[in-house]
Amino acid sequence: MDTLRLICRAQADYARCIDDGPLEHWPDFFVEDGCYKVTTTDDLKRDEQAGLVWADSRRGLHERAAALVEARLPEQQGYRHIIGLPTIVSETQTETATETPFVVVRILRGGPTEVFASGRYLDRYRMMGQLAKLAERVVVCDAPAINGELALPL
Amino acid sequence: MDTLRLICRAQADYARCIDDGPLEHWPDFFVEDGCYKVTTTDDLKRDEQAGLVWADSRRGLHERAAALVEARLPEQQGYRHIIGLPTIVSETQTETATETPFVVVRILRGGPTEVFASGRYLDRYRMMGQLAKLAERVVVCDAPAINGELALPL
Amino acid sequence: MDTLRLICRAQADYARCIDDGPLEHWPDFFVEDGCYKVTTTDDLKRDEQAGLVWADSRRGLHERAAALVEARLPEQQGYRHIIGLPTIVSETQTETATETPFVVVRILRGGPTEVFASGRYLDRYRMMGQLAKLAERVVVCDAPAINGELALPL
Repeated sequence: MDTLRLICRAQADYARCIDDGPLEHWPDFFVEDGCYKVTTTDDLKRDEQAGLVWADSRRGLHERAAALVEARLPEQQGYRHIIGLPTIVSETQTETATETPFVVVRILRGGPTEVFASGRYLDRYRMMGQLAKLAERVVVCDAPAINGELALPL
Repeated sequence: MDTLRLICRAQADYARCIDDGPLEHWPDFFVEDGCYKVTTTDDLKRDEQAGLVWADSRRGLHERAAALVEARLPEQQGYRHIIGLPTIVSETQTETATETPFVVVRILRGGPTEVFASGRYLDRYRMMGQLAKLAERVVVCDAPAINGELALPL
Repeated sequence: MDTLRLICRAQADYARCIDDGPLEHWPDFFVEDGCYKVTTTDDLKRDEQAGLVWADSRRGLHERAAALVEARLPEQQGYRHIIGLPTIVSETQTETATETPFVVVRILRGGPTEVFASGRYLDRYRMMGQLAKLAERVVVCDAPAINGELALPL
């Protein structure tokens, strides 16, 4: 399979892991020193590096996933990701950078299903055999404010 | 074309048939003894087999489509399906099983367009030449309750 | 790359141009005498040709984009397109006609993110080397009424 198709598959599997579980496997889509960050278009323009959520290692991601599971978040709410076609923005010997639009709807227990977030993934992938692993995922949300701390990963 | 691409095309055509009509052609996406079922994630976990909607033959699907058309449902509401990339979960000589995320927005006459349902299709396809036909589609809705009886097919 | 894949890429780039800017590049996805039109399913059935928005040259599209930028529309609202798989409906030596479902969510400053429009693109593409350019895009909205004049392109 070509790189684009491997990346499509990795993105579909990533979304399934969050939407259908188990959330504990989410860090495995990243490389060991993989970085995950949630930010907004506005913050990105102002070059604010902080982000709403930040983890710069698979261990940090595991801690985050464990905290969310312990808080029983996956029992109270669910996501459904809809992901567009990735655009390859640059490619080196070792990494492929892509940009991919997404919309996430959130399903609340006993409540409505609503659009929770929209935006784009700025990803850097490293190919490991037939697997595309995330060296970095920057989730750039369209909305100027989003409460990322109390949410499942995007 | 490879199997995945044929399945993608079948899923796109299925959605167009419901979203843009004619609804009467919907059963043709199934094999003769094809099964269609709508259920929820919760019911699936509890292994409740009943489902909200159930048909286990193309004839049953034709009856259902005819009843919806007679009730003038397609004139009162419309759907727009957005379908993600299918994941092949297993493959035998005769069948391919896939899992595919979806979101459906509903357009009401004179009303708003809202997210109506989200979930995933658990499909089993049989290849008939260049056509992938559904031996089974289990629509697993994310929301714990959905009124499937009064709705267009998902 | 085959035609379908080139068209998928053109559609993804078109959406990125509107969702992430710069809007001024939007006319470049059309051929010189390209036509852009927004209509509804109901109007299409009644064969009403007028449409809500209409431009029949790249120059007309440039004027429209400039007017929207001058009105500071992109600062007040944003879109996120989610686009389904295109279906090739006909193909000639020079053009490929496709039909593609879409949903657009709109992000308002300080407001919620909501489903703004759903529908399908009826496109005619001309291949220019490795680029698929729009000879015509008819945006057919599902909802019977949509205020197209005060909106970003779909």
